[in-house]
Amino acid sequence: MKYLIVGGAGFIGSYIVDDLLSDEKTSLIRIYDNFTSGKHWHLAHHSGDSRLEIFHNDIYDAEIFEAAKNIDVTILLAANPDIAKAVTEPDIDFKQGTVLTQITLEAIRQAKCPRLLYASGSGVYGDTGDAWVAESAPMEPISTYGASKLGCEALISSYCHMFGLCATSFRFGNVVGGRQTHGVAYDFIRRLQLDPTYLDILGDGSQSKPYVHVHDVVKALKLMLKQQVTTYEVLNVAPDDFTTVTEIANLVIAEMGISNDSCELRYSGGARGWKGDVPIVRLNTSKIRSIGWENSCTSTEAVRKSVREMISNLEFLYKHA
Amino acid sequence: MKYLIVGGAGFIGSYIVDDLLSDEKTSLIRIYDNFTSGKHWHLAHHSGDSRLEIFHNDIYDAEIFEAAKNIDVTILLAANPDIAKAVTEPDIDFKQGTVLTQITLEAIRQAKCPRLLYASGSGVYGDTGDAWVAESAPMEPISTYGASKLGCEALISSYCHMFGLCATSFRFGNVVGGRQTHGVAYDFIRRLQLDPTYLDILGDGSQSKPYVHVHDVVKALKLMLKQQVTTYEVLNVAPDDFTTVTEIANLVIAEMGISNDSCELRYSGGARGWKGDVPIVRLNTSKIRSIGWENSCTSTEAVRKSVREMISNLEFLYKHA
Repeated sequence: MKYLIVGGAGFIGSYIVDDLLSDEKTSLIRIYDNFTSGKHWHLAHHSGDSRLEIFHNDIYDAEIFEAAKNIDVTILLAANPDIAKAVTEPDIDFKQGTVLTQITLEAIRQAKCPRLLYASGSGVYGDTGDAWVAESAPMEPISTYGASKLGCEALISSYCHMFGLCATSFRFGNVVGGRQTHGVAYDFIRRLQLDPTYLDILGDGSQSKPYVHVHDVVKALKLMLKQQVTTYEVLNVAPDDFTTVTEIANLVIAEMGISNDSCELRYSGGARGWKGDVPIVRLNTSKIRSIGWENSCTSTEAVRKSVREMISNLEFLYKHA
Repeated sequence: MKYLIVGGAGFIGSYIVDDLLSDEKTSLIRIYDNFTSGKHWHLAHHSGDSRLEIFHNDIYDAEIFEAAKNIDVTILLAANPDIAKAVTEPDIDFKQGTVLTQITLEAIRQAKCPRLLYASGSGVYGDTGDAWVAESAPMEPISTYGASKLGCEALISSYCHMFGLCATSFRFGNVVGGRQTHGVAYDFIRRLQLDPTYLDILGDGSQSKPYVHVHDVVKALKLMLKQQVTTYEVLNVAPDDFTTVTEIANLVIAEMGISNDSCELRYSGGARGWKGDVPIVRLNTSKIRSIGWENSCTSTEAVRKSVREMISNLEFLYKHA
């Protein structure tokens, strides 16, 4: 099998590369990445593997049309990973997500690549409170991040129906793991490294969401790689539980060996971390469970595991390359 | 009140201009249009009205940021009107709809324009058969046209929640009226003018959809102009009935004074008019009816009225200017 992974040097992408390269049926993995949030160290351990081809390019470069040639499955992961940035740069998700997806779709349509897996997110639903939302729930995004994910899903759906593509959109909960490049625990570790006596927390700390470990994300992608793909499918992917931001703060403090008493939690206050943040997320994942997926970690276990992995990666974690 | 109408020289836009200029509370209407489907004859009867300002520009031109200044309400109508064109130009709806909307949103955000009315469409739902779909129905667009409308709605929703905009998205059925620039009856009239002995019909003629007269569309827009706008609202707008393509063909033949016996209907066959066409559309319009809208014409009446209006406009109808 030959794969094109757009954003393949990033957090989720590099774990998929690890998994696919361990499979002898994988004959080619083409990575298309501009390395703004993708990192070379994510892939360094595969430098000897001739099945790995890396295109270091922007999506606007004509190379994407070359990279899409003779590919069996495209995995589209690239997008702005810094969700809160849209507060000051309102079109960042449009440019780095929606436009990127439109160009990718045109490249794979022209190259006749038959299959696509797309990393969407729970942001498509908007602020749905403590309702456990299934894939058919109404969608009213409250962030440009969520708007971009919904816009991309819509584009992919239309390309499936008009141009014969088969695709799955995965609405992931918050994905965590040892090579994160953004995220709440990632930020907490960095701040506590600089000063372990206090921790600034956006909002009131009660924001509660499901956290899915990247290994469980890879399991979901692999499941749909194996399955006969219907024309177009959407799947929620997350543990059916949640963790609060305060719990994550305490967990990071403990894992870093800092005494709870010596670290002050300083809350900025308010229900939301930032404009566009959804404070409560609950995902109904019956659909993907019915076709054979299950999570190996609960939300709290996923966060703990990812914190330990990030701490073991500290040497590389905050590097730009 | 000061209005910016993006696409204001087009079919729907020009009727709104007629209505708003008849209101003495209207102090300014700025039209932003590149006149590709907008026509000068649509607005010619207002040439003496100093309240009308016309920006003849593309959306990529910096003038959109000027045009958005000091505006109370923006009405966004511009988009590719030729839905079937995406079969051969797959990114046309993205460029002329989604990108256009993103740029418009940035312009009105920067200019602090507080309110937006957006012309979406029933294409957001995809192929829902004969179910009468309400606004909360699941959405899986099967055309790039529908994908663009959904992507734009998502963008607008996010700008409302993040940047304080108030907006309404109207999901119109097929809009018909005397200044149409595209559409099934528009095409039929033209073909019968050239040769009244036969009529080519895409599909098997049984496609059945609601048709809403542009005067009823203007009524819906005016209703939301008067109402206190909530942060973000979506409204279906259509008669709660439908008309088939064959009925429209027979109606056009009759209105043009052609004998039914002398005109052969030639069907291309198949359920759909083209890839991406939704053959059956039913819209549940309880929501907008509950706030005071009603249609003055049924679907068949709307088509008949529009055909008569188009025939009376024949002198101008197929002109490019």
